[in-house]
Amino acid sequence: MNRLIERDELIIKWLYEAAEISKKSFKQMISIEEKTTRTDLVTNIDKKIEHFFIEKINTYFPGERVLGEESSKQPFTELKGIIWIIDPIDGTLNFVKQKSDFAIMIGVYENGIGHLGYIYDVMRDELYSATKNQGAYLNGKQLEPVDDISLREGLIAISHRLMTSEKNDNARKIGRASSGVRMIGSAGLETTRVATGKLVAYIGASLAPWDIAAGKVIAEELGLNYTQLNGEEIDMLSHNKTVVATPSAHKEIIKNFR
Amino acid sequence: MNRLIERDELIIKWLYEAAEISKKSFKQMISIEEKTTRTDLVTNIDKKIEHFFIEKINTYFPGERVLGEESSKQPFTELKGIIWIIDPIDGTLNFVKQKSDFAIMIGVYENGIGHLGYIYDVMRDELYSATKNQGAYLNGKQLEPVDDISLREGLIAISHRLMTSEKNDNARKIGRASSGVRMIGSAGLETTRVATGKLVAYIGASLAPWDIAAGKVIAEELGLNYTQLNGEEIDMLSHNKTVVATPSAHKEIIKNFR
Repeated sequence: MNRLIERDELIIKWLYEAAEISKKSFKQMISIEEKTTRTDLVTNIDKKIEHFFIEKINTYFPGERVLGEESSKQPFTELKGIIWIIDPIDGTLNFVKQKSDFAIMIGVYENGIGHLGYIYDVMRDELYSATKNQGAYLNGKQLEPVDDISLREGLIAISHRLMTSEKNDNARKIGRASSGVRMIGSAGLETTRVATGKLVAYIGASLAPWDIAAGKVIAEELGLNYTQLNGEEIDMLSHNKTVVATPSAHKEIIKNFR
Repeated sequence: MNRLIERDELIIKWLYEAAEISKKSFKQMISIEEKTTRTDLVTNIDKKIEHFFIEKINTYFPGERVLGEESSKQPFTELKGIIWIIDPIDGTLNFVKQKSDFAIMIGVYENGIGHLGYIYDVMRDELYSATKNQGAYLNGKQLEPVDDISLREGLIAISHRLMTSEKNDNARKIGRASSGVRMIGSAGLETTRVATGKLVAYIGASLAPWDIAAGKVIAEELGLNYTQLNGEEIDMLSHNKTVVATPSAHKEIIKNFR
């Protein structure tokens, strides 16, 4: 990917500016709309931050495509060239109801390959970033590769939809085999917990490319596996059942979902 | 209760000292033992902190009884007089595996009535405290009474044991009726989230007096209900299925467990 250092510096600057937009909004009225269901929300702040990024990208990198949670009405049908994949607020329910535990995320992909990934945990001021083949960082400090802890020895995050499913006990079976289930409600933050060894795995019920893009680059730089729940590669053109995990936990988990 | 202001000042001082013990331990080897099951852990640090509190209480308040998670081999059979109820580390699994999301908790009860409650979220440096009839505080700043949000409009924390139960879908039904389930893995921290309106309720599977004592004083000062899951009063002499919630959510939840 061209202009890699310039991209990295600009993205970090933009993320801090976007975080200010999100934090300022706590003093204002936030307008909230339901998207597909009553718990699938979008706010004017999601839209404002996405618009902010799109303007910056159009200015600094004209011609490059943007896939954003709030503005991309049509899903992409192919991944040619450079694509910016944006989640302006990951964990919108938490943003609205907790004013914490949400993230701003950016992934930059070229021909389907992730080159840059950023997850900014705004309220903890923790910026996780990675550049392909150059390691992953937390606030500029390089992260150690994650220990290959087994499912039994680790805590696991599992999405609300799978944990509360009325009929399907598959994910809960994995939960019972672990040391304990934790649920944050932000795919990005749950991925950062796996990236720092606090969780051994995170299972997502139906993640879109913008939920996955940044975390996948970060996770893979640390020796974690990030795939569909059946073990197949992530499809960056649609929604995926996902698992990001240590190699050992990953193996144990996908075995149950094949 | 006598010497109330003196107790409050001493307890806050001791909590900060105990927190230093917990944080220093991250640089040392922690020795871990399993208690009842492989996920019911105790470390040398739990024991060290509880011992620290017991020494202080014996020095400053000789003759008063202490009910501690790690040292009380025999459960109490009555609640006469002043009892200090101590959880040296609430969320020991998180303490061991995440080095965050644990709390140090103290409740001071007299003849079964809670007069003082403290939950110290060590890694966020957030000290929640309450004195009966005098309000609840976060780092010395008074907390507002919690808005009476309904279950449908709120996020809820539910314990691992109830969420992963193979056969019993009752708790998950509550989860599905809410806006979403979150799981932190520390009864104390989950209670602080309800106390600050970030969660609408927290359901515990089997909480001991030391899991409940501090949080109950804090919750009740903010207009929350803290009872057994069937709506009956907490029994401070045994383990309880519990719910702490806004009045509206509390009503909806206990209706399902009567």
